[in-house]
Amino acid sequence: MNDSPVLFVLPSPAAGHPSADPVRADASAPLLRADDLGVTRGDGIFETINAVDGYPQALEAHLARFERSATMLDLPAPAVDTWRSATLAALDAHPPVPELLLKLVMTRGVEGSGRCSGWVLAFPNSDFSRERTEGIDLITLDRAYPADIMTIAPWLLQGAKTLSYALNMAALRYVRARGADDAIFVSTEGQVLEGPNSTLVAKFDDRLVTPPSDLGILAGTSQGRLFRWAQQRGLSTTYDRLKVDDLESADMLWVCSSGRLVVPVRTLDAKPRTWDADLHAAALAHLRTARD
Amino acid sequence: MNDSPVLFVLPSPAAGHPSADPVRADASAPLLRADDLGVTRGDGIFETINAVDGYPQALEAHLARFERSATMLDLPAPAVDTWRSATLAALDAHPPVPELLLKLVMTRGVEGSGRCSGWVLAFPNSDFSRERTEGIDLITLDRAYPADIMTIAPWLLQGAKTLSYALNMAALRYVRARGADDAIFVSTEGQVLEGPNSTLVAKFDDRLVTPPSDLGILAGTSQGRLFRWAQQRGLSTTYDRLKVDDLESADMLWVCSSGRLVVPVRTLDAKPRTWDADLHAAALAHLRTARD
Repeated sequence: MNDSPVLFVLPSPAAGHPSADPVRADASAPLLRADDLGVTRGDGIFETINAVDGYPQALEAHLARFERSATMLDLPAPAVDTWRSATLAALDAHPPVPELLLKLVMTRGVEGSGRCSGWVLAFPNSDFSRERTEGIDLITLDRAYPADIMTIAPWLLQGAKTLSYALNMAALRYVRARGADDAIFVSTEGQVLEGPNSTLVAKFDDRLVTPPSDLGILAGTSQGRLFRWAQQRGLSTTYDRLKVDDLESADMLWVCSSGRLVVPVRTLDAKPRTWDADLHAAALAHLRTARD
Repeated sequence: MNDSPVLFVLPSPAAGHPSADPVRADASAPLLRADDLGVTRGDGIFETINAVDGYPQALEAHLARFERSATMLDLPAPAVDTWRSATLAALDAHPPVPELLLKLVMTRGVEGSGRCSGWVLAFPNSDFSRERTEGIDLITLDRAYPADIMTIAPWLLQGAKTLSYALNMAALRYVRARGADDAIFVSTEGQVLEGPNSTLVAKFDDRLVTPPSDLGILAGTSQGRLFRWAQQRGLSTTYDRLKVDDLESADMLWVCSSGRLVVPVRTLDAKPRTWDADLHAAALAHLRTARD
């Protein structure tokens, strides 16, 4: 079957353990024990890489963020070369599809074992052609934390890509029950943050703006790719705080994520938005084809 | 071996699925697929019940909270009778130990499968005799959310016992790196909330006070048992908001959880606290022996 997932398990997910090569395993068979902290505590990290036409996009940026997340969670450093091998092995072993998602997961492992669990799962991406062409409906959601969260609660893991995503999934259920496609989180002061699994980019004339990671949000890999494309076109790119009201005057809003690449915002809180179809098509074509 | 975990798997964890009895499985063998949402998204719920001298304490209260958590996460309703059977079967199958923890976990299951995963794991409790006798050192931590979080962010799952506990584990690492035993979360306004896996109770003369669950915190089962004991002794019990400063005038602070039962606070933010040793001994004896 073309779309059965491909699984590679890392016997040595963390640096410093006796190294062993990633091993292919049956994705339909159980992998994790009931007492793995990845499931009992959501205690672990992940990355999702999109391999478009066989090329794993922003692989090094994803691996670097994976390492940063591990540091923030006081996890052992991932054995990056092994993770890269496992990712490429999973890509190689999967039958060719237009877009293949490669999900890297490292957990703190079975409590008391001192050994992390790690694996890479490869499976076809959903078809986002409608969203990429027609845009998405976005709702702002109060994330109920202040903009200075990184200073007042440095222990809180904001900005790490952890397995504890129940609230992100709840946000998506909440906005979908209201007929929208996605959410954008806002701080208690009205500062624009990020989506449950995406980064917002606003365009003001020749300037692209995205909120800075000192707001306790994730540095977006796809947003980074979009910014580099924009710079090549002579647009300026900045990390700046944006209030929800500031978005009113943007001439275009984009949502970036590895799975969707870049999608235009069609409505924000039910208010219609416009976008430059040619510019969007160029951005999307770049994110799809650039081997960066 | 006396302390190898006992695992019972629920083929039908959710009500409405064709019912099947819990099945004993090998706890040292893998149980979960790599794409179970319990691990990829921390998307599920849990309860931990302490069976002291063979009696599963507050079993019905735990099952009721499990059901409430499922509702908050839009999970299918747990098949409560099956969960009760599995819990009692795991308790029965484990060799007798003074305190046995029974961990109930239900996840949203493999994405797209429409079937939850569910299991009960039984394993001996840690030895908390030192904490129960000598008390613990507590540090206040800014949880970086406002007291009206349930109103402004009803979608945020505050008050549900989810598997997304990475931040709770991070809080414990943070305070332990500072030489303390446990944390107590505080809202941005300085309202006392809860611990990463516990409930705080303050005693003012003949009155026990704990923060109310409308602050986005979990209703504590052990705190509930402590309150009922206090009422029998003629103490009054209330759910009231407390500022950190209010705790100064408390004549005793307790931390309640299923695993530790009830432990006195020895220091709060490094300031020594006193407690009534006789009253504490009576409370602890009750929580250990009451079959409620």
